[in-house]
Amino acid sequence: MTHHPLSPRLDHCPESLPREAYIDPRWFAREMETVFARQWQCAGRLADFPEGQLRRLILGNMPVIVIHGEGGIAAYHNVCRHRGAELCAADRPVGKLITCPYHAWSYSAADGALVATGPARPTADFDRASHGLLPVAVRQWQGFVFLNASTAEVPLAADVPLATLDNWPIAGLSVGHLWEKELACNWKVFWENYSECLHCPGIHPELCEMVPVYGEGIMGASEALGWTPEQPVRRNLREGAESWTPDGKPCGPVFPQLTQEERQRGYSFVTVWPSLYVVAHVDYVRAVRIVPLSPERTRLTVEWYFPEATLAQPGFDAAQVASFAKTVLMQDGAAAEMNQRGLSSPAFIRGRLMPEEYEIDRFHRWLLKAMAAAA
Amino acid sequence: MTHHPLSPRLDHCPESLPREAYIDPRWFAREMETVFARQWQCAGRLADFPEGQLRRLILGNMPVIVIHGEGGIAAYHNVCRHRGAELCAADRPVGKLITCPYHAWSYSAADGALVATGPARPTADFDRASHGLLPVAVRQWQGFVFLNASTAEVPLAADVPLATLDNWPIAGLSVGHLWEKELACNWKVFWENYSECLHCPGIHPELCEMVPVYGEGIMGASEALGWTPEQPVRRNLREGAESWTPDGKPCGPVFPQLTQEERQRGYSFVTVWPSLYVVAHVDYVRAVRIVPLSPERTRLTVEWYFPEATLAQPGFDAAQVASFAKTVLMQDGAAAEMNQRGLSSPAFIRGRLMPEEYEIDRFHRWLLKAMAAAA
Amino acid sequence: MTHHPLSPRLDHCPESLPREAYIDPRWFAREMETVFARQWQCAGRLADFPEGQLRRLILGNMPVIVIHGEGGIAAYHNVCRHRGAELCAADRPVGKLITCPYHAWSYSAADGALVATGPARPTADFDRASHGLLPVAVRQWQGFVFLNASTAEVPLAADVPLATLDNWPIAGLSVGHLWEKELACNWKVFWENYSECLHCPGIHPELCEMVPVYGEGIMGASEALGWTPEQPVRRNLREGAESWTPDGKPCGPVFPQLTQEERQRGYSFVTVWPSLYVVAHVDYVRAVRIVPLSPERTRLTVEWYFPEATLAQPGFDAAQVASFAKTVLMQDGAAAEMNQRGLSSPAFIRGRLMPEEYEIDRFHRWLLKAMAAAA
Repeated sequence: MTHHPLSPRLDHCPESLPREAYIDPRWFAREMETVFARQWQCAGRLADFPEGQLRRLILGNMPVIVIHGEGGIAAYHNVCRHRGAELCAADRPVGKLITCPYHAWSYSAADGALVATGPARPTADFDRASHGLLPVAVRQWQGFVFLNASTAEVPLAADVPLATLDNWPIAGLSVGHLWEKELACNWKVFWENYSECLHCPGIHPELCEMVPVYGEGIMGASEALGWTPEQPVRRNLREGAESWTPDGKPCGPVFPQLTQEERQRGYSFVTVWPSLYVVAHVDYVRAVRIVPLSPERTRLTVEWYFPEATLAQPGFDAAQVASFAKTVLMQDGAAAEMNQRGLSSPAFIRGRLMPEEYEIDRFHRWLLKAMAAAA
Repeated sequence: MTHHPLSPRLDHCPESLPREAYIDPRWFAREMETVFARQWQCAGRLADFPEGQLRRLILGNMPVIVIHGEGGIAAYHNVCRHRGAELCAADRPVGKLITCPYHAWSYSAADGALVATGPARPTADFDRASHGLLPVAVRQWQGFVFLNASTAEVPLAADVPLATLDNWPIAGLSVGHLWEKELACNWKVFWENYSECLHCPGIHPELCEMVPVYGEGIMGASEALGWTPEQPVRRNLREGAESWTPDGKPCGPVFPQLTQEERQRGYSFVTVWPSLYVVAHVDYVRAVRIVPLSPERTRLTVEWYFPEATLAQPGFDAAQVASFAKTVLMQDGAAAEMNQRGLSSPAFIRGRLMPEEYEIDRFHRWLLKAMAAAA
Repeated sequence: MTHHPLSPRLDHCPESLPREAYIDPRWFAREMETVFARQWQCAGRLADFPEGQLRRLILGNMPVIVIHGEGGIAAYHNVCRHRGAELCAADRPVGKLITCPYHAWSYSAADGALVATGPARPTADFDRASHGLLPVAVRQWQGFVFLNASTAEVPLAADVPLATLDNWPIAGLSVGHLWEKELACNWKVFWENYSECLHCPGIHPELCEMVPVYGEGIMGASEALGWTPEQPVRRNLREGAESWTPDGKPCGPVFPQLTQEERQRGYSFVTVWPSLYVVAHVDYVRAVRIVPLSPERTRLTVEWYFPEATLAQPGFDAAQVASFAKTVLMQDGAAAEMNQRGLSSPAFIRGRLMPEEYEIDRFHRWLLKAMAAAA
């Protein structure tokens, strides 16, 4: 038996990134200045930004404020243009103006324009129009809010098949469960772990029972020896399971717009580097947000979204539904930390990718291209 | 109305220092090697260095010892010339010799000369005369002790009008109250805040009531629109107030040598960058010492000095007198920390000074000149 | 009186290492890449590595595993060759294979060869033979296990007269007492302190009573004024003392193979830079291991070894025997920390060695040569 030419497997074993990519503060700083200062990053859900409110958050390594005003959502760097004071020290209601508490410079909440300079009376050389708040771009997709600090026009998720999830009504779902976890690893180590299933047999016994193909160390049938495109599509979930729930049964009404194939697959993914992936099941949706904190610290924020009808079921317990994926994620987190501990040894130079790790290779190419393009 | 040509206001809006000046350890290291290794810094009051005692302190980033011996005050680096041991691990009484506890090298307390090398018997190539303690220069002014690690002759406060306070008997006053506070900001951010009053209306309500001109966001009448040199000198304090005390009344006998104008002003300042400013009122004096601890940490030491006669008044409470200025300083500290939080954002490049911030501009020029001269 | 030409004293006073050698992370990193990545370091005693067990430790700054298998002791870097995962997260029993818990790559415990790649099926360009575990060399001497991460053949302790201790049956002794201590100093500062006795009169009153020549600030009679090779060998210990014990009496049976001179000396030393010195008395042996943790942190591990017959004596208390040397070591540790505090001052440039510090000079030459050779 051989692998079919249409298999996504790599045709060689490329090198992985060098050790410094995972531990060196200078590499991390370059990523911040390029990837995280230029690319779209998911900042949360629309519901996290209520109308009339201002919220602060960190985008890459930059503090920003997000304002949901009458004209929609706007975002700015949380820095006054006068002498750099922090504009907002707390989340709070917001009106038409944002006024710096230091010297009372006022900016329009709608477009960031500098409206007044408090008691200061600038001389004629001071150009008010070029001292508005520094803007941060905003886009929405399926109820997710994305921010981008780049001043260039950057398309949202240009190479990502967002349409994969068009049949899921994600924007209308509600958070039923939330879990946050800080990991002692570089953010890329978590993404790499997410991008291959060679670790599944050793790390994820429960998951391999739920998704038998994972038990073979591959992510789909097309990677298997002897696979041909003519073979009928295999279902991913074990016999009798329709969703990632404790008993494999849907935890509530199934999304009505799904195709037969979408139901059979059992889950569909969308991956938006560097900050988000979304997993859609027939009955609920899960999103994982990945935030680098330092070269060797990463924060995960995981949310489970359900239809209101599901949440309203008597005795429904979202935490119980979430527990399966949470178990898998805790195993992934421990594996990523184990990887980080090892690759930080000065004896480690570079890893070697296996043909099954084509998705890691694609991630590395995307990263290096994004770093080079912005440099 | 316009601003008079003799107003101290700037005639344009210059840029402020770049972001790295406030956060970068390399910039901070350069400041240590230049400004804080070459300029005079206030180390405290003469009374802090009792005769016959040795006291340790940190000058910039260098541990030094200050000895008050028979011949006056001398200071040295706290480092043995043999293999660099710390000479003194604690403040203690001192006699004619300072002996290193490691290998018993002995130095003259009066001039630092190497007197003995303990059990070691150096060969002829060892020049004892060039292995004395490394000296630190000492000067006094009005009871304040200044130290300078520079080996060059540097005049004390060359450009500072120290004579402003000649009519105050500061050397003879006693500490009635002491307050120390560590701030999460660069030392320059505190100085900048001290150097302008645009922030006064928003940050200091009590102060603006006490000093009405501050309520206009300016530091003196000459900055006001419509001011001319022909106008009579305005008093600074509110009607009925003579000093910064809870009720505006002097807290004890008024200093007898003050001129009518000095009494009317209500306060007089002397600023000795990078480490000290002194505010003199008609009845007491306040000194603020500023010590950089790291790029983003700064320590304030504030003392209130009174005549003995004032302190001896029945029921006199120095803390109550101090509380007004302490309130103002806590507001300043919070403002400086807010400024630091904002300007540390990578989105911040440089600030823009307003015409009213002429004193900040002068501070920046002084700093850059001091850094360049020593480089 | 003069010093004899055969005295080991230096004929001049050389400079010591520059300040950055003791505090700069870059100098420390260079030491890790050269000295600690290329030289033999003591990892403990054979008894610390029981057969059938795998033990983890840090060699310089590199995590390694040490395996005592059927063929003896082998050591490897604790890093999987696939994507750098940590192979072993805990000490544990080990069989013929070491299997990475991440993706199930398996290596031979005997020689580190890559045996299997788990579910991954590498393409033909992947050369299994060049992906074995990265080896660490192992040697034993007198029951001490030494490791070396260098891939070159490096002789063990080439310039060290290991034979000095040939008459002591060290391999057969057992640990009676263990003491560990972390010091706030650079590792070289501890070695320097160990290498001279000028500090003995001021720092070690008990030791100077036990070893009278130390009370003169020298390490041996040949350094004394007036010494000539014709003089009879002086005993090192005070009259009536035979060993470093509370009462100077041997704490158990005397080692039978010692020569008359070895018994008279009272102690014999072997020094194996950068990690070990061994002091042998007539009745027991003491070893001090020195591990750099960071530029300004160092860990000492001190063990006292005794014959089983000594340990079996009724009422024998190894801690009481150990207490004398422990007192001396605590004095040395405090002195080293005092030295570190002083030499970290920016005012300190370099120290100056005394003629009695010939052993420090030799240590500095060894260090600089080792750093240069590997660069």
